[in-house]
Amino acid sequence: MPHMEDTCDVLIIGAGPAGLMLGCWLARTGSKTRIIDRREAKITRGHADGVQCRTIEIFQSFGMEETLRREGNELSETVFYNPDRNGHLVPTSRIPDTEPNISRFRHVVLNQGRIEDTLIDCMRKDGLTVERSMSPISLEFSDSSAETHPVIVKVQHLAPATETSNGSSGLYRSNIISDEEFHRGFTAQGGQVETIKAKYVVGCDGARSWTRNQLGFSLEGDSANIYWGVMDARPITNLPDIRVKVVLHSVSSGSLLIVPRENNLVRFYIQMGTLQPGEKLDSSTQSPEKILESARKILAPYTLECPEIEWWSVYEIGQRLCKHVSHKNRVFLAGDAFHTHSPKGGQGMNVSMADSYNLGWKLAACAKGLADPSILDTYSGERVEVARQLIEFDHKVSRLFSGKPAVTAESEGVSMEEFQSLWIRMGKWTSGTGVVYPPSLIVAESSTQKSTLAKNIIIGSHFESHMVVCYADAHATHFADRLVADGRWRLIIFSGDLGDLNQQSRFNNLCDQLTNADASPIKRYTPPTANLNSVIEVLTLTSSPRKALRYSAFPEITRPFVGKHRYPTYDQIFSDEVSYLDGGGGAYMGYGVERDGPGCVVVVRPDQHVAEVTGFEDCIDVLARFFGGFMTVDGMKL
Amino acid sequence: MPHMEDTCDVLIIGAGPAGLMLGCWLARTGSKTRIIDRREAKITRGHADGVQCRTIEIFQSFGMEETLRREGNELSETVFYNPDRNGHLVPTSRIPDTEPNISRFRHVVLNQGRIEDTLIDCMRKDGLTVERSMSPISLEFSDSSAETHPVIVKVQHLAPATETSNGSSGLYRSNIISDEEFHRGFTAQGGQVETIKAKYVVGCDGARSWTRNQLGFSLEGDSANIYWGVMDARPITNLPDIRVKVVLHSVSSGSLLIVPRENNLVRFYIQMGTLQPGEKLDSSTQSPEKILESARKILAPYTLECPEIEWWSVYEIGQRLCKHVSHKNRVFLAGDAFHTHSPKGGQGMNVSMADSYNLGWKLAACAKGLADPSILDTYSGERVEVARQLIEFDHKVSRLFSGKPAVTAESEGVSMEEFQSLWIRMGKWTSGTGVVYPPSLIVAESSTQKSTLAKNIIIGSHFESHMVVCYADAHATHFADRLVADGRWRLIIFSGDLGDLNQQSRFNNLCDQLTNADASPIKRYTPPTANLNSVIEVLTLTSSPRKALRYSAFPEITRPFVGKHRYPTYDQIFSDEVSYLDGGGGAYMGYGVERDGPGCVVVVRPDQHVAEVTGFEDCIDVLARFFGGFMTVDGMKL
Repeated sequence: MPHMEDTCDVLIIGAGPAGLMLGCWLARTGSKTRIIDRREAKITRGHADGVQCRTIEIFQSFGMEETLRREGNELSETVFYNPDRNGHLVPTSRIPDTEPNISRFRHVVLNQGRIEDTLIDCMRKDGLTVERSMSPISLEFSDSSAETHPVIVKVQHLAPATETSNGSSGLYRSNIISDEEFHRGFTAQGGQVETIKAKYVVGCDGARSWTRNQLGFSLEGDSANIYWGVMDARPITNLPDIRVKVVLHSVSSGSLLIVPRENNLVRFYIQMGTLQPGEKLDSSTQSPEKILESARKILAPYTLECPEIEWWSVYEIGQRLCKHVSHKNRVFLAGDAFHTHSPKGGQGMNVSMADSYNLGWKLAACAKGLADPSILDTYSGERVEVARQLIEFDHKVSRLFSGKPAVTAESEGVSMEEFQSLWIRMGKWTSGTGVVYPPSLIVAESSTQKSTLAKNIIIGSHFESHMVVCYADAHATHFADRLVADGRWRLIIFSGDLGDLNQQSRFNNLCDQLTNADASPIKRYTPPTANLNSVIEVLTLTSSPRKALRYSAFPEITRPFVGKHRYPTYDQIFSDEVSYLDGGGGAYMGYGVERDGPGCVVVVRPDQHVAEVTGFEDCIDVLARFFGGFMTVDGMKL
Repeated sequence: MPHMEDTCDVLIIGAGPAGLMLGCWLARTGSKTRIIDRREAKITRGHADGVQCRTIEIFQSFGMEETLRREGNELSETVFYNPDRNGHLVPTSRIPDTEPNISRFRHVVLNQGRIEDTLIDCMRKDGLTVERSMSPISLEFSDSSAETHPVIVKVQHLAPATETSNGSSGLYRSNIISDEEFHRGFTAQGGQVETIKAKYVVGCDGARSWTRNQLGFSLEGDSANIYWGVMDARPITNLPDIRVKVVLHSVSSGSLLIVPRENNLVRFYIQMGTLQPGEKLDSSTQSPEKILESARKILAPYTLECPEIEWWSVYEIGQRLCKHVSHKNRVFLAGDAFHTHSPKGGQGMNVSMADSYNLGWKLAACAKGLADPSILDTYSGERVEVARQLIEFDHKVSRLFSGKPAVTAESEGVSMEEFQSLWIRMGKWTSGTGVVYPPSLIVAESSTQKSTLAKNIIIGSHFESHMVVCYADAHATHFADRLVADGRWRLIIFSGDLGDLNQQSRFNNLCDQLTNADASPIKRYTPPTANLNSVIEVLTLTSSPRKALRYSAFPEITRPFVGKHRYPTYDQIFSDEVSYLDGGGGAYMGYGVERDGPGCVVVVRPDQHVAEVTGFEDCIDVLARFFGGFMTVDGMKL
């Protein structure tokens, strides 16, 4: 059998949501990538299902949000059921499941298998496919500093695994299963070995990460000694609410969470029991009947029949974090490989995909020599803090969720008011839209001057969306829809009122500087023969209406000519006016920029996070300093 | 070569938009159908492109509106350019291209090839595919009244045709081409002949319909002796508006219409010249260069370069109608086979698809023995009138469009005010949402009593949409999204305020009657073992909020139990309340039904047109009379 060898920019180990999202970035930006997975087949049922607003925004940036809209079930309402003074379960309050005004999208649920399909389709369109039944067996570093591909991973092709991921039992991935049992079936059995030399390796290989073990890192944290069951079923019940999210505490039989899913499925999370410290749950005695029995006790006197249980599992509640997520900026961990927690917040899959959405464009830029590898430090700086917050949140919520409710204000137990208020307060954070990255090489410090220019734009946060009107065609459109994931940085010019001749002249002068000044990052980093916007894209938002200045009067840099025939582009200039049929006209107010003010320029990263804010006059200096800190041409700083 | 024979419910001749839409209905409702086309391949460029609001509503009813949303270009604005007093072309007014509040969808443009792809995909999912290179050669009737499949069509398999439809010249289908030249290439050349015996045959075979000729019918009308060019190109121009619809009259060089298309294409309609009465245009002298030259003259002093012309054609303006569209209710004509006109109103493809959307469910019901064939009379009664209005509209508009503009109020020529006001006035009609079918076996007469019950519901018009809230899951949803094209009739119960115990009791009584009264059409026409809603679906809209009555308290007929396990349905009961995030709460007002009034029941046909309105107390009588007029069981009236 020949010993095969290959080199690539990035080797991704593990093709779950985190690995696939990373694959989408790398395939879209044209990096040479391989993505391997030990498992023979993708899951098709069960596992994660919640898709938060920010995740849909991320999917939209790749043009793949349609599956979620078409197939996912939008969660519109959350109802809290608690015992009344007589111990009867009653709905005590109803709230919208997605907090108003945090996103143009809504929280939906869809099974992890379909999410993975969507990512796989997106990758495939860009030429990347998952290689299955491939197990990594060793990871080494070349010590030579001249080595461009210093990470050496041997992988072995597995014989078709006996483990099948698509039965109705999801126990095989549960944390109540021992490591030994978990890894059974993945032992390499004499299959072909291949050596892959990579610039970068990313371990997206889950809670029992092989990559993490190779690096000698470990998850740290504790367990709550409480175990819950989970099942997907089509229920028949006289509970008045079964197609909205239900958060339910019984008097003394435990708690339950109901999440209605696509195709009339319902996901149930059901509190089952406690363990003694150190006690291990016997996985062989778990069954869907036992879970259903627990659910019935909690729901009583309401009835519950589940003629078909599509999927089920049992897990122990715990929170664990690995604070080290990279080794020499060459090997990284993403997703469950560095943070695990309980599933009820619907966070795991979302935070995991957000990890690799953060990492992907950075790796692509470094692999292509467009950015200095020092930007890779920001991955840990940005994502470990998010994971820490996640684990803190989950620790609080899961203990309140599993606690006995206080039936009256005087009685002992968990205060339902406290629980509900925590739940609501965390809405923005759990939607993924509350994440703010700290200052770094690629996130500038805030300042009073910057806040004055754009009051509501938070440096480090993602660029929020408002409805604007496309100058050339009068379409009403969400501004953030234009922040597509193609690896480009963006300059968003709030031009102000171009009907004012003085402001128009300042705007033209700015565009001229961006086009011609030697210090302009557009001039500096755009290859001379390429489209003016190929590295940094300019988007313009006027506060004046469309008729104030005709389209062809805008400088070329704001509507660059493309292709052999030099056709103008029509989708980079917008007006903050009321559209004919879809509202709008509130974007300047939403971003906190004065309509009649001096305007400003906002720098947005390829992952939509705001990196810098500047005025027109100091724009070139500020941009030169900012981009000069990390941008490179063929790997060299200029 | 064996002589093949086959029988089917419906044979569709011609797989353009009209034929394919018919195929969608018949495939969806499970009729045995064949659809043949002489051409070897589908068109991929040029031809029709406008998709009106009502057409998107129709696509939505089949679940296929997504392609239009994703790929089509929404037209947001129309700009009129006219000569000013000095003869300079200037924009004189701007209006929204889709009139506000006529539909939940917007006018888009997308090339006919992609529209056909969408219909073909929809048909294929239901098991029907187009048989190409098949030419009908004879059409006969069996005289035996016992014959269930009395229409006999012989079809011949063609050798691969020499005609290719996908070049940049669309002249081959233009009305300036002679019939002889048009039919060249379709002469059957000794291919296998098959005899197809059908219950019904529908000729969707275009302006030079073979089927129409077989029936001895002909198009009648006249020609304006004016010819126009049409082209799809990517223009470079200093005209200030090129990505919105532009309606332009030059002083004396003719008129021009600009329709921006998907992928930065632009469709131009360009007035080229006039003909003497009886004069025929020489197709061999037409060229894209000549069209472009005319366009430049009209646009001057604005410049126009078109480095790439994707498609072009030349046509003579004329309007023709065939008033006979059926023969013995066994052979029908749809689309261009019975109405032709100029393309600038963007009507042809839309009206053609609306023809067969009207016909499809009727044929399916008759073929299955669920309705009396006398309902087929309504096809002519409903669609010939629409075609007549279309042709009247086109006659007016195309003559005003081709006329010389009056530069001042005193000068001779077409008044631009008159032209614009006609254009705007016709907006609702051209959107397809203004069509009202006259009283017939399947459209009841209006009356004062009915108008009192539901002021804004017009019997004969399509059932309009308003935002409502789904009772079970709190989703905000457009009510008309629930009127899916599956062949079922619908009873829409405006239940009124169910928080009022008296009204609740009236509602329960109505549901009880619908379920149990011998005269109830639901009891009468639903097979005893089938789902209660399998023939007529009940949709309920309450004016009381969701919390007024819990879901499980609704009678079974409003949320029927389905399948072996008798799971309740969750998508048939709605509330007219304000949703958490998407507005709503105005549906009763929109339909003109009193929130605190007695309620009413609206009967909606499978094609979404309103057929009858009745109060609760006389509901069973009214429904028994209405449905008794045409519904059958196994072809027999009860």
